[in-house]
Amino acid sequence: MEVWRPDMARQLEPRKRPGPIVGRLSLYLRRLEGLLRDGFPRVSSSSLGEALGIADTQVRKDLAALGSLGQPGIGYDVADLIRAIRSALGIDRPWSAALVGVGNLARALLRYNGFIERGFRIVALFDSDPAKVGDRLEGLEVYPSSRMPEVILATGAELGILTVPALAVQNVADELIAAGIRGLLNFAPGVIRVPVGISVVNVDLTVQLEQLAFLVHLGSAEPLE
Amino acid sequence: MEVWRPDMARQLEPRKRPGPIVGRLSLYLRRLEGLLRDGFPRVSSSSLGEALGIADTQVRKDLAALGSLGQPGIGYDVADLIRAIRSALGIDRPWSAALVGVGNLARALLRYNGFIERGFRIVALFDSDPAKVGDRLEGLEVYPSSRMPEVILATGAELGILTVPALAVQNVADELIAAGIRGLLNFAPGVIRVPVGISVVNVDLTVQLEQLAFLVHLGSAEPLE
Repeated sequence: MEVWRPDMARQLEPRKRPGPIVGRLSLYLRRLEGLLRDGFPRVSSSSLGEALGIADTQVRKDLAALGSLGQPGIGYDVADLIRAIRSALGIDRPWSAALVGVGNLARALLRYNGFIERGFRIVALFDSDPAKVGDRLEGLEVYPSSRMPEVILATGAELGILTVPALAVQNVADELIAAGIRGLLNFAPGVIRVPVGISVVNVDLTVQLEQLAFLVHLGSAEPLE
Repeated sequence: MEVWRPDMARQLEPRKRPGPIVGRLSLYLRRLEGLLRDGFPRVSSSSLGEALGIADTQVRKDLAALGSLGQPGIGYDVADLIRAIRSALGIDRPWSAALVGVGNLARALLRYNGFIERGFRIVALFDSDPAKVGDRLEGLEVYPSSRMPEVILATGAELGILTVPALAVQNVADELIAAGIRGLLNFAPGVIRVPVGISVVNVDLTVQLEQLAFLVHLGSAEPLE
């Protein structure tokens, strides 16, 4: 019976995974943006950690890696911290993305204000369906996949958003990578195999629904911890 | 200058938050399902932790809370562990949801196989737009919000999925709660205020795009840790 070990991961799922610190920095960022919106200009590491369920020492260690931004007894300046985290995450500049698969989810993403507010712009659309090629959505023309190399070069798209059926996802990923894309946001189920140096983030909308079900379940059962 | 403390959270964001263990159990579950799919029937706590960036001791502690499922030197049975986690998360039974706001995202979610595969069914649709009321999507009729109480009672919907504009989200949440819904999955930006006993999970699609941008950024910069 074969027991799985992490060194098998390279063959199984050859994609880069966000380290835990990236996830924590994203959580801090969300929380800090909420605090700023609600009019709180300063926060302590212990308050930030407590609200997120992250140990105080871990918060201080993570934030120290960004530079010494906190002052003992005073805490962190929320706006400074937001700038520092966005800079560390490489999201203090605009990023442009090509989207492949122009269905309902694509249309929803094209109108999703959150992307634009945070500096993410969809600059190119592709679809393999001849009936969709030539359509215009939110000011963008839908191109056939065969034109990926020239359109991606012309638009300067750096990221690829995949809203295609599961069966098409590996082919589309290969085409995007061949056209110069280095990062893929995949909404389809299943694993994408990519060469070293290419990043993949898979979005599984079920995870959040499961968390919600658990919370509701918890409301009427013994807590887990 | 007011410094934010977690005890202010009740007024600011009076919603239940998934504890860290829920997030970790969800991560274990995803990973274990991948291992089972790839034909690995057993896994050790250290392998599972290493692949996810979670300490071995933490993994063993989390899994011990589900009952003593592992055997020293042999590890955990992947299928058993999946069952135990799904049971602990309360997702070993079907959950039904009412969806409010029949736009592009709603249409995408209605066709999202991941929900059905994991036991989540959308059983009722609502929209405030008279032009959409009466439409049929994937076999479901779109009802006006005014009929929420009776339709939610009749369908047994337990969760609410909100795909409405940000400005409408608080009103819709209030209506769903009044109709008996105890958990809300919110795709709109902004904070929903809910009474004690009601759970909210906010989906921010930008988080994953930021993680991807960071990974691509990391490929061409000094690593953060």
